[in-house]
Amino acid sequence: MESIKVGLLGLGVVGGGTWSVLQRNAEEISRRAGRQIEIVHVAVRDVAKARARVGDAVSITNDPTEVVSNPQVDIVVELIGGTTLARELVLAAIGQGKHVVTANKALLATHGTEIFEAASAKGVMVAFEAAVAGGIPIIKAIREGLTANRIEWIAGIINGTTNYILTEMRNRSISFEQALSQAQQLGYAEADPTSDVEGFDAAQKLTLLASMAFGIPVQLSRAYVEGITHVDDQDISIAERLGFRIKLLGITRRRPEGIELRVHPTLVPANSMLANVEDAMNAVLVNGDAVGQTLYYGKGAGEEPTASAVVADLVDVTRLHTADPEHRVPHLAFQPESMVDIPVLPIEDVRCGYYLRMTVNDAPGVLAEVARVLADNEISIGSMIQEPAADGVATLIFMTHLALEKNVLAATKAVEAMPFMRSAVTRLRVESF
Amino acid sequence: MESIKVGLLGLGVVGGGTWSVLQRNAEEISRRAGRQIEIVHVAVRDVAKARARVGDAVSITNDPTEVVSNPQVDIVVELIGGTTLARELVLAAIGQGKHVVTANKALLATHGTEIFEAASAKGVMVAFEAAVAGGIPIIKAIREGLTANRIEWIAGIINGTTNYILTEMRNRSISFEQALSQAQQLGYAEADPTSDVEGFDAAQKLTLLASMAFGIPVQLSRAYVEGITHVDDQDISIAERLGFRIKLLGITRRRPEGIELRVHPTLVPANSMLANVEDAMNAVLVNGDAVGQTLYYGKGAGEEPTASAVVADLVDVTRLHTADPEHRVPHLAFQPESMVDIPVLPIEDVRCGYYLRMTVNDAPGVLAEVARVLADNEISIGSMIQEPAADGVATLIFMTHLALEKNVLAATKAVEAMPFMRSAVTRLRVESF
Repeated sequence: MESIKVGLLGLGVVGGGTWSVLQRNAEEISRRAGRQIEIVHVAVRDVAKARARVGDAVSITNDPTEVVSNPQVDIVVELIGGTTLARELVLAAIGQGKHVVTANKALLATHGTEIFEAASAKGVMVAFEAAVAGGIPIIKAIREGLTANRIEWIAGIINGTTNYILTEMRNRSISFEQALSQAQQLGYAEADPTSDVEGFDAAQKLTLLASMAFGIPVQLSRAYVEGITHVDDQDISIAERLGFRIKLLGITRRRPEGIELRVHPTLVPANSMLANVEDAMNAVLVNGDAVGQTLYYGKGAGEEPTASAVVADLVDVTRLHTADPEHRVPHLAFQPESMVDIPVLPIEDVRCGYYLRMTVNDAPGVLAEVARVLADNEISIGSMIQEPAADGVATLIFMTHLALEKNVLAATKAVEAMPFMRSAVTRLRVESF
Repeated sequence: MESIKVGLLGLGVVGGGTWSVLQRNAEEISRRAGRQIEIVHVAVRDVAKARARVGDAVSITNDPTEVVSNPQVDIVVELIGGTTLARELVLAAIGQGKHVVTANKALLATHGTEIFEAASAKGVMVAFEAAVAGGIPIIKAIREGLTANRIEWIAGIINGTTNYILTEMRNRSISFEQALSQAQQLGYAEADPTSDVEGFDAAQKLTLLASMAFGIPVQLSRAYVEGITHVDDQDISIAERLGFRIKLLGITRRRPEGIELRVHPTLVPANSMLANVEDAMNAVLVNGDAVGQTLYYGKGAGEEPTASAVVADLVDVTRLHTADPEHRVPHLAFQPESMVDIPVLPIEDVRCGYYLRMTVNDAPGVLAEVARVLADNEISIGSMIQEPAADGVATLIFMTHLALEKNVLAATKAVEAMPFMRSAVTRLRVESF
């Protein structure tokens, strides 16, 4: 059978990995796909550098629109990133009736609705396994492996950089700044780490997972996003003593009132599977009503792990290339006409456990006053410890039962107004799955 | 669109779960599949009991061939188990041009080659996600999610009963017999536990995984199978002190000389993901050359977890029901004409680490003699501990580096012939992934 022809936009980390994997494993991949998958056209900034990498048999251009409009190309792989040019190119490829494979989570979390609608109208596929959790086939698991289930919630470590930083902070008792600087030296964090450490990258991925889990439109702007820049190594060690570890989790959950969609540092029990996901590894825990909890673990980034997902998508698209659209898996797991618009809840309406650390004057009656404020706000205390006082200052740590975020915010505000408080309340969320 | 019609053979644990999940989640499942999946005909032993469960709208028979030959039925779900009648019914269904979904690992590990060939010839699908690791979509991950990879090895906890027993033996310091009896009382083990505790169930599943990972024929008879009946609680606690846990693993690995295919109790590092898979949970660790290690974790048995996999298969088959066979995923991951016949290695040619426990007379020169025998057989010692002697008897424990099984067998035989030995050598394999 004739080979399927691929046009590649970008030959950076993931593009280079995709090239390498397709070359090295060409024979195994063809034995699976039933035909050869061949990169025939590549768009890059530096043509000479690309020529050295891919040799003479492949056309190279610095104009990506040439690849998109090349009539020989069946599938366009978009690996240039960003949301402006990438959007134009992906829509242009769809317009030309080409299938698209992309690793671009920012693009899909922002313009997914438009892109998937255009693809459906044109009868082509947009595959994006590489956009979430790198090489872990989590999109396939949710879209195809768990179709029997009413999915109740997903909780994932879906950003390797922050997981590496939090792991180092705990293992070596160092500060966020120290761990970040080390991560940058090792190439785990970028020079501008904002997207990772502020949680934006995780929020983009979570938004896509939530859409596929619940059949709701992609709505990144409704996600609550809190990063790890404010995580204190002190809290990591207190959490440890309490039997918890702090992880940056993306959590989405179905509630009777709507969908929770939130990224934030979270205390999880130290003996749970998620707590034991270390270094730059990713893991996603999915709870379905029939299957219960399933977990998917692996490398969430890097040249070849991400390329593994891109190439798996190429194989899928190759198989279904000429198939009737009804034979294909819907882009967001549910048939487009069956999507529902369940509201995403504001963070104030979220329920979880809370870790509250307060630095107070070591004086009689302080604990009683704090406990009263919590009770007044319907916050039930699961456990409490008071650290030994030094220099007239004491530390109180409360672990609450499930509480409503808005009540915790009100209680925090009330406590912070009290004269015995020495600093703001440290508030972290707690989840025990 | 018209509903797809399903005939169900068996309404026991998994059949009942399949019925329940399809009823309860009918709306979500149709929203994903694009059409309704409807059970129209059920074959059971006890028609009256089934009638009480499924109501009047479904035809019920105690003759399974009626379901198989019912022209209205598009997909036959085989959940009766066994390898004789089940084989006949599955082949008959295929002969009638019907797709098949089955959870029957024994059937496929024994007659898979015949069944998949018949299905390919007839252009129908045989889906079997439920046959391995229950609700975990591991077959989908290997067949579709990791197609970019040359898979190097798979190691899995794929039998929940034995994992529950080993977990209880460790947590409560009880014997195999005590833990088994408890597992039977709780319904985790059957009255005749042979298939589970002797490793046969795990070997069937591993055989299917190996076939899909390496593109080799299903060949259960070549698997090395050792169960957990001889695992001593003493070894569990010694392993614990050495930083290991004992798990029943199914391991298949590509070596230059051939494929390793083996089920046996195995020491794994206590901080590894597999070591932390507790109770009746399953997990499969897959190593691919591009993606590195990925792990899939969840419930490997039970009514609804297994039904989750059956129904996911029904959705897949529903989507591809009328598709050209080339659009479908090959049964064993590789195109039938691309399967290869790499030999399965005999256990003597396997390489791994070994844990060797010896009870010896507490006399001078014993350690020297044992060490010499190991060295003579090219077995390199990683670490060694000698337990304090009591009543003139000492215990020696060796942890070896990678060694060839046949050398370890020869060394064991030579040591056991020595006059200072008080009992046979306890030999367990060690893997650090």
